Amino acid sequence: MSRQGLIGAVEAGGTKFVLALTTQDGEILARTRIPTNTPTETWPAMQDFFAETSELHGPIAAFGVASFGPIDIDPASPAYGTFTTTPKAGWSGARFHDALASFSVPIKVDTDVNGAAIGEWMSGAGQGCRTLAYTTIGTGVGTGVVRNGHSLMGISHFESGHIVPPQNHAADPFPGICPYHGNCLEGLASGPAIERRWGRSLDRLASEPGAVAMIADYLAHLASTLVLLHMPDRLIFGGGVMKAPGLIEAVRTATSAQLNGYVSHPRLDDGLERYIVTPGLGDDAGITGAIELGRQALARG
Amino acid sequence: MSRQGLIGAVEAGGTKFVLALTTQDGEILARTRIPTNTPTETWPAMQDFFAETSELHGPIAAFGVASFGPIDIDPASPAYGTFTTTPKAGWSGARFHDALASFSVPIKVDTDVNGAAIGEWMSGAGQGCRTLAYTTIGTGVGTGVVRNGHSLMGISHFESGHIVPPQNHAADPFPGICPYHGNCLEGLASGPAIERRWGRSLDRLASEPGAVAMIADYLAHLASTLVLLHMPDRLIFGGGVMKAPGLIEAVRTATSAQLNGYVSHPRLDDGLERYIVTPGLGDDAGITGAIELGRQALARG
Repeated sequence: MSRQGLIGAVEAGGTKFVLALTTQDGEILARTRIPTNTPTETWPAMQDFFAETSELHGPIAAFGVASFGPIDIDPASPAYGTFTTTPKAGWSGARFHDALASFSVPIKVDTDVNGAAIGEWMSGAGQGCRTLAYTTIGTGVGTGVVRNGHSLMGISHFESGHIVPPQNHAADPFPGICPYHGNCLEGLASGPAIERRWGRSLDRLASEPGAVAMIADYLAHLASTLVLLHMPDRLIFGGGVMKAPGLIEAVRTATSAQLNGYVSHPRLDDGLERYIVTPGLGDDAGITGAIELGRQALARG
Repeated sequence: MSRQGLIGAVEAGGTKFVLALTTQDGEILARTRIPTNTPTETWPAMQDFFAETSELHGPIAAFGVASFGPIDIDPASPAYGTFTTTPKAGWSGARFHDALASFSVPIKVDTDVNGAAIGEWMSGAGQGCRTLAYTTIGTGVGTGVVRNGHSLMGISHFESGHIVPPQNHAADPFPGICPYHGNCLEGLASGPAIERRWGRSLDRLASEPGAVAMIADYLAHLASTLVLLHMPDRLIFGGGVMKAPGLIEAVRTATSAQLNGYVSHPRLDDGLERYIVTPGLGDDAGITGAIELGRQALARG
């Protein structure tokens, strides 16, 4: 890996872009946020930030991007770095590699949830893990799985939110809100699903004692399935819904009950307290992951 | 990779070991099968085969092993290649590296299902896939996921058979037979579960028209979940249960219904006919995978 040059890091969200210029060790030299408007406004603002800060601090050697989607994250694809069918006006077909072409340096692009997973692996609650699964439960439900610091993918990024968990329809007759699957995890346990079912967010449902346990049971199906199909060293559960009091503890209890001792490993002892955890970086996971993606772009040339 | 030397390949099953001495190109120079008795009987028989055939054909450069389990398949573990808590008399604590130590060459050990997955990737129905998921539905249910020819794992190999699928208890009140989970996939859809529920194997249940559709629906939950959490290029479904007439077609139909168009990719077009397929190698998948594991052992030195 070249020791020369700086990293340009981009956390591209649906409402704002966080931009940072850092050293290869991750020291932040400049940082800003710009609104996510159309590409004709946001691309030049992004270019200006990196051009101006680079003039001040030194040349950029690589970019790392953790972005909202849907976006092509396959380095082998001709459309790598391109937004696909996003309903967000103007972004379909927009490509990070075009927007950053003037810098003529390597670029690595990954999804927002994969970026956060890499950030947590790098310097958050996933430090020291060989395999880490980071799940966010918010407006949507998504999981990034990281192995040795690199996100896993196949023909596309993963879509854990669309797994349909077992549902006891007598206890929970809610049909779910997913336009594709109805009662998948996003349809049953995302923030909007909870609002639709109970008219309030989960952290304001203390009067509904079964609510936390019910959502925990659905999330435990995801946790168990992640264990059985990825065998991670640790599971991180974050996002707005996870801020509900008692939820992380209830997810541990329900996951223990569902796995029922079948997977025997020291990491799963102690009632999963060290195994299923909340994020360590909070709002900084995405930009931290983007910095690491920049380093990975550099390592590949 | 050294171009010198031969590959010793071992497919270790619960009732028999298949042994082969091959060139690095996979040409089989000698092949035999020996019964799986206790290690004190089976280990020397295995050693003798490789010593004798090697004397005839040339020195062995590496071993590849695809084995029944539970067995430690983590190359970073001190117990790599060791049977753990198997109920099979005498095998707990037995280690392939000890049994093959006299040859002083690299050894790669993987599970039987991962071995079959690698074999199918190498020269069966998974050729050309970057990510391949191979599932066997027989006495048990298990999945090996291969990426660029290497099986994926975390703190252990995967355990897809213990995922609990949604169950319509009105249509299928069967509580399942898994001692850990009752109605997980092994508990509901394995060969023994089908025998317990209907008193016959699935291929003899033509008189029970709902039987194939019901089993297909459970297997489609696994197929959908594999798509959402690994996004493979292709899914192979093999094993004794899959020999039931109409089952593979019913799994395709049910998986299409469950995914409901959410995952859009050319590979999933055509009603999943090229996406969900039966194995190409039949009984040779395991030994073919073991040969490739031997090549991988050699590539690592």
